Amino acid sequence: MQSSWPEAGTPLDQVSTPMPVIDEDRLEANISRAQAYFDQHGKGLRPHIKTHKIVAVAEAQRAAGAIGINCQKVSEADVFAQAGFEDILITYNILGAAKLKRLRALHERVPRLSVVADSTVTVDGLAAAFDTARPLTVLVECDTGGKRCGVQTPEAAAALAAHIAAAPSLRFGGVLTYPAAGGAEAVEAFLRRTMALLADKGIDCPVRSSGGSPDLFKAHLVPSATEHRAGTYVYNDRSMVRAGECTRADLAMHVLATVVSRPAEDRAVLDAGSKTLTSDLLGFSDYGEIDGFESARIVSLSEEHAVVDISACREDFPPIGGQVRIVPNHTCVVSNLFDRMVFHRNGVVTRVEDVAARGTVW
Amino acid sequence: MQSSWPEAGTPLDQVSTPMPVIDEDRLEANISRAQAYFDQHGKGLRPHIKTHKIVAVAEAQRAAGAIGINCQKVSEADVFAQAGFEDILITYNILGAAKLKRLRALHERVPRLSVVADSTVTVDGLAAAFDTARPLTVLVECDTGGKRCGVQTPEAAAALAAHIAAAPSLRFGGVLTYPAAGGAEAVEAFLRRTMALLADKGIDCPVRSSGGSPDLFKAHLVPSATEHRAGTYVYNDRSMVRAGECTRADLAMHVLATVVSRPAEDRAVLDAGSKTLTSDLLGFSDYGEIDGFESARIVSLSEEHAVVDISACREDFPPIGGQVRIVPNHTCVVSNLFDRMVFHRNGVVTRVEDVAARGTVW
Repeated sequence: MQSSWPEAGTPLDQVSTPMPVIDEDRLEANISRAQAYFDQHGKGLRPHIKTHKIVAVAEAQRAAGAIGINCQKVSEADVFAQAGFEDILITYNILGAAKLKRLRALHERVPRLSVVADSTVTVDGLAAAFDTARPLTVLVECDTGGKRCGVQTPEAAAALAAHIAAAPSLRFGGVLTYPAAGGAEAVEAFLRRTMALLADKGIDCPVRSSGGSPDLFKAHLVPSATEHRAGTYVYNDRSMVRAGECTRADLAMHVLATVVSRPAEDRAVLDAGSKTLTSDLLGFSDYGEIDGFESARIVSLSEEHAVVDISACREDFPPIGGQVRIVPNHTCVVSNLFDRMVFHRNGVVTRVEDVAARGTVW
Repeated sequence: MQSSWPEAGTPLDQVSTPMPVIDEDRLEANISRAQAYFDQHGKGLRPHIKTHKIVAVAEAQRAAGAIGINCQKVSEADVFAQAGFEDILITYNILGAAKLKRLRALHERVPRLSVVADSTVTVDGLAAAFDTARPLTVLVECDTGGKRCGVQTPEAAAALAAHIAAAPSLRFGGVLTYPAAGGAEAVEAFLRRTMALLADKGIDCPVRSSGGSPDLFKAHLVPSATEHRAGTYVYNDRSMVRAGECTRADLAMHVLATVVSRPAEDRAVLDAGSKTLTSDLLGFSDYGEIDGFESARIVSLSEEHAVVDISACREDFPPIGGQVRIVPNHTCVVSNLFDRMVFHRNGVVTRVEDVAARGTVW
């Protein structure tokens, strides 16, 4: 009784709002286009499932040619392991007895499981939790400008790689970077220098993994990388249009919303608030773009309301009860708010999928 | 296998992070203090369940003396109706055939159900969906400075009230305001003027409902209001401390997080990102406060990471693997991210409750 998801065949204008919806054709095109680019450049594409958290979408990415998947949490990886995924990289420092125990159980079931580390603390915890009978593959996370996690220099990367290689219960798998800033040249320089240092030590570095959807179609500018990790490209969002990585015609996710109030001449209120869109701005000054009403601005959100400044389009803007489609600033966080996701083709619902890896606890 | 929630008796330092936790003693004290204030002033307190979405917490609020509950969605109200709540106010313009059908089914089961409207479009939709055998109670939502929904003047409020009163399938229940700005005087003036206009028309206005946790302990400054709606006071958060409505000793929710990286001298990284804390700033320039390390600043979030500037406390800040407690900027949105909520007393888990009204779809 609590939830009423639309059935296949329902036209989108009869879907109860607020509701994110995924365009099947655009989803397929986004998966194909990215995979074709990586195939052309002879590089592996490893989709990050954080964007969709849906088994069927990851299966489509794998069927297109993805070399494996990327998860951020052990509990997410569990979901995909149960669905039969055999190559899973968890790009996180995994710490603490409870998570290490679950990671070990996961390692028993996944043929090719790997994780990352950026400190000896993380590496030593992993080393103690695994054994020589079945060593765990560990990559070194490198900070090439993202200023999040990661060792700071190629020298530190090589030293940590040697520390991993020296642990009998671990296997050094390579290096990884999340280059949110710094550009391709900085990433390439970091990787090259690290590979040279590792060669001097006689340590093989089979995987060099770059990442990020905003850099997806620039991945060939990092020739030393063997694979690239990306999530957002599968749905795309307003931030990806701004980055020039896609056009509006490639936006697979929209959020359906209803005009619930027109309280003042220049103000409309929608039923999609921060519990639908999140407050992620990603550098924008408003909370999403309303398809077909680009001069309207979503100026504030409360939990279940969006306040829209319609001063530039007040005559054209839909009346109370009308439905609009919002292009979210950031798709990955919208997925994380809904237990299921509605798909459609040409405006008619095709299926509803569980967002199976949402809300999982380590 | 996907989720491992802690069992009763587990010490918090063994709870896998990131995880919001609720202090039972502070929760009880927050409920008691607010109820005592309203009892003292002879005014009704109607808790908004959006903050917790948990049946057991609403039951504690009701047991303390709450006159009923406030929901924002029909689907949320369903959850509480099934749990036996008999007085539910849904503070939303409900539009569209699907939602009206569910609202009608809800009305069959809830002895005292009421909704709000701020336009004749909403009222006419409600009027057509209900019938004279069991009229639905409708309040007029008024904008007294919040600049969200609501009629703009007392004259408009009285006119819409008359429109409701004229519909045989509806009953005019009173007026409602969400005074996010404007202050008590503006709210009182709006209510008084509206009541006078309604008296002139011979329309009874039994309920005058004010709202907002930041104004909770100022509710007596609006003597015309018969009841007050508030959510956040039950847990409190960083924004409530700033508003002066509580102290740090009244914070019932903390988010447990682990230091997963210390990549640079002035930077630590926690495992609580925007999928745990959300990006809600509520006017702050950082994403939460770390208990005991107030000089540390959570300067950015990605989905599963918080980047912390520890330049002012780098010697004292916990090492990799250490646990910290974050005071979230905004509790209501954190609740909305987790399927279950962990409660504790003196640092030991007491129970885990379903966040039953999270993720419900209209």
